[in-house]
Amino acid sequence: MRIVVIGGLAAGPSAAAKAARTNPQADVILFEASETVSYGICETPYVLGGSLPSEEKLVIYTPERLRDEKRIDVRVGHFAERIIPSRKTVVVRDLHAQRSEEVKYDALILATGAHPRRLGIPHEDARNVFCLGSRSDTLAIARYLETETPKQAVIVGGGYVAMETAEAFRARGLAVTLVHRGRLPMPGLEDETREAVRWELERNGVVLIPDAEVEGFVPGKNSAVGHVVTTKGTFEADLVLTAIGVVPNASLAKSAGLRMGAYGGILTNNRQQTSADAIYAAGDCCELVNAVTGERMVLALATLASRTGWIAGENASGGRIKFEGVVRAMGVRVFGLQVAAVGIHSREAASAGIAAESVSIHAYEKIALFPDAQKLNVRLLFERRTGRLLGANLTGPAGAILRAATLSLAIRNGLTVRQLADLDCCYTPPFTPLWDPLLIAAQQAVKKIS
Amino acid sequence: MRIVVIGGLAAGPSAAAKAARTNPQADVILFEASETVSYGICETPYVLGGSLPSEEKLVIYTPERLRDEKRIDVRVGHFAERIIPSRKTVVVRDLHAQRSEEVKYDALILATGAHPRRLGIPHEDARNVFCLGSRSDTLAIARYLETETPKQAVIVGGGYVAMETAEAFRARGLAVTLVHRGRLPMPGLEDETREAVRWELERNGVVLIPDAEVEGFVPGKNSAVGHVVTTKGTFEADLVLTAIGVVPNASLAKSAGLRMGAYGGILTNNRQQTSADAIYAAGDCCELVNAVTGERMVLALATLASRTGWIAGENASGGRIKFEGVVRAMGVRVFGLQVAAVGIHSREAASAGIAAESVSIHAYEKIALFPDAQKLNVRLLFERRTGRLLGANLTGPAGAILRAATLSLAIRNGLTVRQLADLDCCYTPPFTPLWDPLLIAAQQAVKKIS
Repeated sequence: MRIVVIGGLAAGPSAAAKAARTNPQADVILFEASETVSYGICETPYVLGGSLPSEEKLVIYTPERLRDEKRIDVRVGHFAERIIPSRKTVVVRDLHAQRSEEVKYDALILATGAHPRRLGIPHEDARNVFCLGSRSDTLAIARYLETETPKQAVIVGGGYVAMETAEAFRARGLAVTLVHRGRLPMPGLEDETREAVRWELERNGVVLIPDAEVEGFVPGKNSAVGHVVTTKGTFEADLVLTAIGVVPNASLAKSAGLRMGAYGGILTNNRQQTSADAIYAAGDCCELVNAVTGERMVLALATLASRTGWIAGENASGGRIKFEGVVRAMGVRVFGLQVAAVGIHSREAASAGIAAESVSIHAYEKIALFPDAQKLNVRLLFERRTGRLLGANLTGPAGAILRAATLSLAIRNGLTVRQLADLDCCYTPPFTPLWDPLLIAAQQAVKKIS
Repeated sequence: MRIVVIGGLAAGPSAAAKAARTNPQADVILFEASETVSYGICETPYVLGGSLPSEEKLVIYTPERLRDEKRIDVRVGHFAERIIPSRKTVVVRDLHAQRSEEVKYDALILATGAHPRRLGIPHEDARNVFCLGSRSDTLAIARYLETETPKQAVIVGGGYVAMETAEAFRARGLAVTLVHRGRLPMPGLEDETREAVRWELERNGVVLIPDAEVEGFVPGKNSAVGHVVTTKGTFEADLVLTAIGVVPNASLAKSAGLRMGAYGGILTNNRQQTSADAIYAAGDCCELVNAVTGERMVLALATLASRTGWIAGENASGGRIKFEGVVRAMGVRVFGLQVAAVGIHSREAASAGIAAESVSIHAYEKIALFPDAQKLNVRLLFERRTGRLLGANLTGPAGAILRAATLSLAIRNGLTVRQLADLDCCYTPPFTPLWDPLLIAAQQAVKKIS
C-alpha cells in the first residue's frame, strides 16, 4: 500500500508519521515543494525577537530524520502539479531536475497548508516588505534585521501574528506602528479583552493606528518601501510586515474537482476524507467544524494541523478515528499579558442565534497576600437558559493560558457554568487562591441563568 | 430567624456570611472560643519561611469587619459547651466573663473544625514542641524562631504540612530532619510521585528518616526537648514540629446525639444537614463523600471548608443547594516542585474494587526550544474497561497545579481519557507546547483501554 502526502510543514509530517505507524507495511511518501519540512513557523516571532536562541532549531525534523525515525520517504523540492483521482495518480514536478512524473497512490493526503493573504497593491514585493508564512520568510526577515538594522517597522494587521511580531520588533529596539483595519486589535476576542490588549500594546510603545486601510506603498531608497500610506495617515517605514490572515492553498484540490467550502478550504467529513475516493485532507487547507455552533470555518492553528494530520494519517492507512470538531483554543502572549480565548465569542453566538449571557470578573490569580499576586480577567459566555458554557476569554499577567484548558474541556463536553462552579481546585498558596478565578466567574454566571 | 454558627476559622465565617446574604432578615451569630476568626492557617508556613511578609495579614476578617461588611454578630472568646437539640438551644460559655448562657437558634451550623493529632507521649507539651492548628500555634512557632534561633528542627510527619514547614525551616537556615512512619513522604500520592518528592527533599538538604516511629522525647535544657528518640535512631532537636494529621472536633456534636461517621466526623447529607433537625455542619468536623468512589472520608482542606460552609449557610437560611462530593484536589509546593493530586490513587481504586490501569509520562511543559523549558510528570489512573478518569498526579517545576484543575473537571464529570485526548489546548510558544502533557498522557492511556 502506498500513501502519498502532499505538503511538509505541519499537518503533512504529522499525517505521514501517523500513517507509517498505523500501517507498518505501507510505503509513505511525502512531497514538499520547498527545501524544508517540519518547520516551527509559529515560533518564528520568538527567534526574531531573540528569546529563542537559534533559527535552525525550528527545523523539528530534517528529511533524513523523518526517513530514519518515522519511516517516511521525504522528497523536498517536489511540487504537486495535478491530481488525477480517476487513476489514483498525482503528477509531481521535481523542481531541481525540472521534470514531472506520475505517482500512483492507494491513499492521498493533502496537507497543502495556507499562504499569507496579500494586500494586492504595488510595491508589495519590495525588498523590505515581508509576510510570515514559510521558513524563507523567516530567514529573509532575520537577514534584513541583521544587515540593515531598520529603526522603524510598520506592521499591517491586528491578529496574533501582528501581536507576536510587534513584541519581537520592540524587543530588538525598533519603533513599531501597527496599522489595523479594526477599531481594536485581535478581532476574535471580546471587546473588553481587546481593550486590554490595546492598552498593553500602548504601554509597550507600539503605536496603534485603528480603523486604517492601507492605500499604498511609497518607494524610498534602494528599491525599498519608505512610507506606508493609509486612510489614517502616512507612516515612515524601514521594514513592513503584512499579517492580515491566511488563505487555504486549495487550488490543487479544486482543480481535481474536490468539493470546496464557502471559505475556500477543502471540505472533509469527520474522518478528514474529502469528496474524492481515497483522498484525505488535513491542516490549514481544510475547513473545520466549530464544535459549539456546528458551523464550518477556516482556522490556521498548529494544534489543529497536527491533530487533523494525525487523524487523516490514521484513517488513510486503515484506521477509523473521528475528529470531534474544534473548540478553538487560542493563546497568545502580548508583551506582559497572557491572552487566551476558547469557544465562541458573543458576536458568533448572536449570529448563530444562541441567546447568550456573559459575566466578567477580575480576581487574584493567587492569594493577594503574596507580593507578586496579580489579577486575572475571566469572561464567560454561556447559554442564558441552560447555562451551557459557550466561550471564554482569559487575560492577565499570569495563569490565563493554562486555565483556558479547563474551560476548553468544559465547552467540548457541553458542561454548564453550574458544573464549572462545582470544580474542585487545588489551593496551593504560592500558586493559586482559595477560590480560583474560574470558580468566582462560574458562581457569578450561575446567578444569571434564567 | 436566628442562625447560630459555632466555630470561626474557615467554614464558620463562610457559612455565616452566606447565611446572612441568603436571608437578609436573619440574625446570624458566630461563636468562636479563641480570640481570632477567619484566619489563614494554610498560609502559616509561608509566614514562617519569610515569603509572606506579615503574620497579621493572615487575619482575613476581623470580628469588626465581619460585623460591618457581612452582617455577622461575631463573639470571640465564647465556647459552645452543649447543644440541646430538643429545645433548639446551645449553651455557650463566655470565657472572659466566666459565665454560660443558653442561646436559642432556628438553625445551627457546626463548624468546629479539627485539631492536630498528638503523639500522646511524655514531654509533648515542652516549650519547643509545636503543632500547627491555630493562630496561637503560628505565633508560638514564630516567636520561638525569632527569640531562640534554633539550629536543628525535627519534623514528625510526612504529609503536606510537613513538606511546607520543612521548606519554611530550610528557608530560615535550619537543619531539618523529617521523621516519617512511611517509606516515602506524602501518603496520598502514587509511589512514583512520592519518590520525586523524596528526591526534592533530599536535594534541598532535608534529612528524611523513613519507616520511623517516634518513641520518646528526651528533655534538654530550659524545659525544652533536646532529642527525639525513634525506632530508627535518636535525633538532636532545638525545635520539634508534629504534623501527623488532624482529628475532627466532634465531641460537641457527639454529646448532642448527632450521627457520627466511621472516621470520627459528623455525618451529613448532601445539603450539609446532620441527623438532628435544623442542625447543619461544615468543614473539617464533617465527613465528606468521595465523588469517585462514593465512600465517606475525612479531608481537612480549606477549599472544602469554604465550600461546605457556603452550602450549609445557604441551606440553613432557607436555600436548597447540594454538595456534589469531593474530587479531592490537593496541591503543594515542595521546594522547587509543584505537586498536585486529583481524584483517587491506585490503592484506593484497588480497595474500592475498581479495575484500574495507569500511565505515566514525562513531557516538556512548554516547547523544549525555550531555554527554561522543563518536564512535567503526568500520571493518570483510569478505569480499564471504560477509560473513565479516576485520578491523576502531576509533578514538575512548573505547570502542575493549574493543569490539575482540568483533570479535576474531567473526574467530577465522569469523562474518559478518550474525551481528555480530544481536548483543544492553546499552543502559545512561551507558555505551552504544541502537544500538552495532558494530551500526551491521555493518548497513551487510550491505548490501554481494554
